[in-house]
Amino acid sequence: MSLLVVGSIAIDSVETPFGKRAEVLGGSAVYFSISSSFFTDVNIVGVVGTDFPVKYIRLLQQKGINTDGLEIQQGKTFRWKGAYGHDLNNANTLFTGLNVFKNFLPKIPRELKKIPYLFLANIDPNLQLLVLKNVYSPRIVACDSMNFWIQNELKALKRLLKKVDIFIINDAEIRLLSGESNLIGAAKYIFSLGVKKVIIKRGDSGALFLTSGGGRFYAPAYLMEKIKDPTGAGDSFAGGFMGYLSRVNSSNPPEAVFRRAVVYGTMMASFCVQDFGPGKLLGIDRSDIEKRLSDYKRMVRF
Amino acid sequence: MSLLVVGSIAIDSVETPFGKRAEVLGGSAVYFSISSSFFTDVNIVGVVGTDFPVKYIRLLQQKGINTDGLEIQQGKTFRWKGAYGHDLNNANTLFTGLNVFKNFLPKIPRELKKIPYLFLANIDPNLQLLVLKNVYSPRIVACDSMNFWIQNELKALKRLLKKVDIFIINDAEIRLLSGESNLIGAAKYIFSLGVKKVIIKRGDSGALFLTSGGGRFYAPAYLMEKIKDPTGAGDSFAGGFMGYLSRVNSSNPPEAVFRRAVVYGTMMASFCVQDFGPGKLLGIDRSDIEKRLSDYKRMVRF
Repeated sequence: MSLLVVGSIAIDSVETPFGKRAEVLGGSAVYFSISSSFFTDVNIVGVVGTDFPVKYIRLLQQKGINTDGLEIQQGKTFRWKGAYGHDLNNANTLFTGLNVFKNFLPKIPRELKKIPYLFLANIDPNLQLLVLKNVYSPRIVACDSMNFWIQNELKALKRLLKKVDIFIINDAEIRLLSGESNLIGAAKYIFSLGVKKVIIKRGDSGALFLTSGGGRFYAPAYLMEKIKDPTGAGDSFAGGFMGYLSRVNSSNPPEAVFRRAVVYGTMMASFCVQDFGPGKLLGIDRSDIEKRLSDYKRMVRF
Repeated sequence: MSLLVVGSIAIDSVETPFGKRAEVLGGSAVYFSISSSFFTDVNIVGVVGTDFPVKYIRLLQQKGINTDGLEIQQGKTFRWKGAYGHDLNNANTLFTGLNVFKNFLPKIPRELKKIPYLFLANIDPNLQLLVLKNVYSPRIVACDSMNFWIQNELKALKRLLKKVDIFIINDAEIRLLSGESNLIGAAKYIFSLGVKKVIIKRGDSGALFLTSGGGRFYAPAYLMEKIKDPTGAGDSFAGGFMGYLSRVNSSNPPEAVFRRAVVYGTMMASFCVQDFGPGKLLGIDRSDIEKRLSDYKRMVRF
């Protein structure tokens, strides 16, 4: 079944201890949609400026991503510039140019309103709520957020969390939102807000999947020696996760399906960080994912 | 088969966000020996002062630990005082009183010299080397170390690493020793020094087991909501690991045995942190360990 993502589309410039790249394709909706395109039909909703290279639109389309919801506005595309030190789990933002993204008002094309799987990437929670109002009861909705919204739009974020099925967030952010340092305690706080499933992304320590019913799953990260650029890893994770869920297409998937979805998310994040931008994700095929999954199973087996 | 540990025996005072305790039993050899006593016959070599409460000696003996190698010297027992903030992975040392431990010269009782499994807990690498000279070719030797020795006794540590089978170390320490931030890269540096197996302890992110032959195993930590005191977790891990290896007693264990040993180490560390000092470890039995192992298997299965 098909999947809809609403989020940012950006032009990134990144520096890591392993090199630097200027003006590469980026943004949460981009990483998510490329990553999920290996599993299902994906539709992207976002905005770019008139300076957005048409080759990038073609590139998304070549991955089978439907760009009908990609709006082109007069002005410049969202720019992000960041740097990472040896701790690749934390980015230092050097520059943010919101540009056309500043007044982004997601418009869901009519034919996409009845889409069953929806990912609300990290944008203003008021906009995430707006998207939810404009779609017809999707089967599964997941959302991401970040410290900026936790600090500045907490009420809207809490309203949102009453309406989504899965909250995908990183460890520092869930600690900030909950005021709890223990991750299980932090997840319990989130459950009290109304969400039933939480995924906590922990960078190179892996990801936790926790449910309000007491389900606990810990998928360690895939061990790798060469990591070039962690940008987009979280959204690539979410793309693999939601892409797999959408492909399974069960109306009420058992926990085992969510666990496998977390593992596919882990695989996609591991490819993402192997090269700058979405470079590696664009160079692999489905068999590479299955091959890595076999490696991963060997890595965690006991 | 039986197991020998040489390390510190201490009286600890600890404060964490969840409480504080003064003058509790501590030290690397203590945590290691209590933890490994669930799996095998353990022998402890260390030194205490004349102020050491005899009830603690009895307590070790009640766990079946042979204390023939426990030397009592005129003076005070090693004291350590530390505090943890909400990041329970890092202790702040408030006070260290080496006392009789300052001139500790490990003496291996004659009947223990031919012991097949040996753990050299974190002490001066020159003393770890001395112990190795005084035993008769054990089947498996593992050692720990710390930043102090990496910074001040690097040559001795490197000599030691040529002679041990397994190096058990935490993530910050292996990064310091290797100059590599990537953990696989860091392990490869250690392999170049002559060790063939490395375990990297990552606190609440779990443990990695890596071999010079390319073996890679990632055991995530057991997820827990209530953690009271992380003191001794690393040595409890090592105790479970070596204790299991010693119980299996294979002359050349396959990687699967080492992996299961890492998992038992993970279980023992998870019990350790549930209460102050070795309190929780002293209150469990073998069936609690097996029950937690079943929980753990459910937690990582996909």
